[in-house]
Amino acid sequence: MAAPYDFDLLCLGSGPAGQRAAVQAAKLGKRAAVVEKARTLGGVCVDTGTIPSKTFREAVRSFSRTDRWGTVYGVPSVARPTADQLLSRVHAVVRQECEIIEAQLRRNDVSMYWGRGRFLDPHTIEIDADRGSQVVSAEKILIAVGTHAAPPPAGSDPRVVVTSDAILGLKQLPKTLAVVGAGVIGMEYASMFASLGIPTTVVERREKPLEFLDEEILVELMHQMRNSNVTFRMGEAVASVEVVAHGTGSRAALTLESGKRIVADLVLYSAGRVGATDGLGLEKVGLAPDARGRLSVNERFETAVPHIYAAGDVIGFPSLAATSSEQGRRAACNAFGVDVCGFDTVFPYGIYSIPEISMVGETEGALTSRRVPYELGIARYREIARGKILGDDTGLVKLIFHRETRALLGVHAIGSGATELIHIGQAVLALGGGLDYFLRAVFNYPTLAECYKVAALDAANRLAR
Amino acid sequence: MAAPYDFDLLCLGSGPAGQRAAVQAAKLGKRAAVVEKARTLGGVCVDTGTIPSKTFREAVRSFSRTDRWGTVYGVPSVARPTADQLLSRVHAVVRQECEIIEAQLRRNDVSMYWGRGRFLDPHTIEIDADRGSQVVSAEKILIAVGTHAAPPPAGSDPRVVVTSDAILGLKQLPKTLAVVGAGVIGMEYASMFASLGIPTTVVERREKPLEFLDEEILVELMHQMRNSNVTFRMGEAVASVEVVAHGTGSRAALTLESGKRIVADLVLYSAGRVGATDGLGLEKVGLAPDARGRLSVNERFETAVPHIYAAGDVIGFPSLAATSSEQGRRAACNAFGVDVCGFDTVFPYGIYSIPEISMVGETEGALTSRRVPYELGIARYREIARGKILGDDTGLVKLIFHRETRALLGVHAIGSGATELIHIGQAVLALGGGLDYFLRAVFNYPTLAECYKVAALDAANRLAR
Repeated sequence: MAAPYDFDLLCLGSGPAGQRAAVQAAKLGKRAAVVEKARTLGGVCVDTGTIPSKTFREAVRSFSRTDRWGTVYGVPSVARPTADQLLSRVHAVVRQECEIIEAQLRRNDVSMYWGRGRFLDPHTIEIDADRGSQVVSAEKILIAVGTHAAPPPAGSDPRVVVTSDAILGLKQLPKTLAVVGAGVIGMEYASMFASLGIPTTVVERREKPLEFLDEEILVELMHQMRNSNVTFRMGEAVASVEVVAHGTGSRAALTLESGKRIVADLVLYSAGRVGATDGLGLEKVGLAPDARGRLSVNERFETAVPHIYAAGDVIGFPSLAATSSEQGRRAACNAFGVDVCGFDTVFPYGIYSIPEISMVGETEGALTSRRVPYELGIARYREIARGKILGDDTGLVKLIFHRETRALLGVHAIGSGATELIHIGQAVLALGGGLDYFLRAVFNYPTLAECYKVAALDAANRLAR
Repeated sequence: MAAPYDFDLLCLGSGPAGQRAAVQAAKLGKRAAVVEKARTLGGVCVDTGTIPSKTFREAVRSFSRTDRWGTVYGVPSVARPTADQLLSRVHAVVRQECEIIEAQLRRNDVSMYWGRGRFLDPHTIEIDADRGSQVVSAEKILIAVGTHAAPPPAGSDPRVVVTSDAILGLKQLPKTLAVVGAGVIGMEYASMFASLGIPTTVVERREKPLEFLDEEILVELMHQMRNSNVTFRMGEAVASVEVVAHGTGSRAALTLESGKRIVADLVLYSAGRVGATDGLGLEKVGLAPDARGRLSVNERFETAVPHIYAAGDVIGFPSLAATSSEQGRRAACNAFGVDVCGFDTVFPYGIYSIPEISMVGETEGALTSRRVPYELGIARYREIARGKILGDDTGLVKLIFHRETRALLGVHAIGSGATELIHIGQAVLALGGGLDYFLRAVFNYPTLAECYKVAALDAANRLAR
């Protein structure tokens, strides 16, 4: 008997959510397919987002490190890098990542369709490609189309105003940069360009950036960014952007609502991201995205139409690659009635600014407002042998313990390797460990992980007072 | 009433064990003192061992990274560094580390004596210093004098044969190096010099180096070291070392018992370390070190004389800074009848070779011989986005799980950041987590820590077969 549908699960989008859902379905013995409209697999993550920006960041760090070693070890300094040099590895890394995804999909017998998918009815998708269109049907459908950058104000000149989707296409480095919007992406790029010695101004309507971060870590980040020539204009909004002639080219002049004026070679317009749901034909299935193009789901990742799921950035917070991937896996398990062996409730946040930041668990602010009594332990990289060997004297790790149970409640880190280090605290948090684990544990010496030991001793001393 | 002794605890040696014991005693309200014979606090760890060698290693890595980035990003390559450049930060880092230890001892009111301590009787120490000698007494005494490198064969020419205690005093880099002894120190230095492009030969009497390591990791290390121009002569012993004239200087010609001949500018003689117990006057208290100058202790770190404790490298295995520090703390707690809130039974090993290695828990070999059924999961850096961004395509993480309980039994890692990464596995191991923790956990992306997730998925797939 012919199956009533071409596939058991069809995923719109091959980013972390769609990819992982398709592989999970395949592992459950289901016929799975992925539809991808872009030139690469992997979605924004691989194409213009995480992977390219982190590859660019690694190049920026290499050059500033080389520059610093030049000073430290007395060897000639290298010239300031060009955009070409900084971007030279991006294409190769993106291609490799794309090949790995393709190999994984093939290995699991997931069918791939290149083109733009659109609902004809709740079980049928038309895929438009250059070579024509085709129609496929599926019992379950996962919408994992991701997001695109919110477009800059109408009439902006693309020579001087770009979004994060386009910034890594730049042909030469700006001499000055303005970043509008101090979310994760805006702060990451601002800190990277500032590390290259490019004076950078960040404009943000809210009173402070990255409000989910621990206050102390945020203050430290802003302090360090200011030290590398970033100017913050918080609580300010852009009234207008003009293009002004400058030499043989042009640059941007921003006027803020307060009347301040910022002139910069380039403006990164980073005012959030919008679900890429336009043109999906959602009206054919009775789904309506919100004003930012996002879809709502229940805890099973079901949309209002029970056999249509959504996962990844298109459903909003937290919009992190690793989380989207787990959402995809979970959606696929739910779709086929398999126990999802649930999410860990603690997942880490990683901000790839320079310096990098990571956190897991609770902030001081949240605990205080919930009246949970806690005590802190802090370790600074400059007190740790490894910090001195690395020459990082500004990093820190902060541990938050429950005052009575001594359970670990939160970890906040800023500095070299913070996004890696956080996973030690995450394991202790998830497995119910606390202060006594860190007091007993022996850490490799010299490592940054020793911060956990030093911070725990600090907390023990505070508790003993 | 005057106390019968000058101090409650006197520590001979200010390395990790002595230092930590004194601070622990002080925190318990005891009068503690430290006697240090060297020019710096911190023992071998700070003076000639861990800290200088890891600072040197960081310089080596910076130069090879700079060199590699030169190739990758198309910027001019820097000249091969000189010994002066590579060693330029060592003095500063050692001084800072020493200052931190001094500040910590002062803050805890630990008395410091500079000079060579020697037992006059079981409670009395004479301290000989340039300015004369003095005598102090203590209720409890901790012998934490550490080790020194086993001396090279009598008659060796110090211009061409050095030990690890002296190698960082070199004035210029050798053009070729021979390392006799493939223990941790020999392998670390061999890999560092080889990374600088110096052809290096390692001679070792045993059939393989670092036998406590997982076989697969060891094979990978040797493979990578061979790729950077290291020649291994295993199962071979040195019959003689001659000094031969070479240009205006001299170099060494080693003849092996097999008749092979190795000519090198410099020989690092690294045949283990010997307890620095000579001249301590142990005969006055009835203690006798073994043939390698080491002292035996029971699980409370008591020597045969119950109020005299020993801890750190002088008691032998594992002779790691972090472990010695815990031993010191524990000895002090025992000395004053305080619960030690025991050791964690799992402590990590870190080998700072290039590439670095770390392990915690069991090896495949040990489990097989004990007939414990296990399954593996392996993740290679080249499959991980972060590995590709870093350009490290040779690292790997191997997880070993119990086949039935799915508990984590061991973690073995080689590659960038291995000594940091291991602590994630260590926490899971110590807190009784296993495969399901890693399957559920969300890791920051892109990080090397993702290897845990990928390796866990690999193990789950193998178990499902």
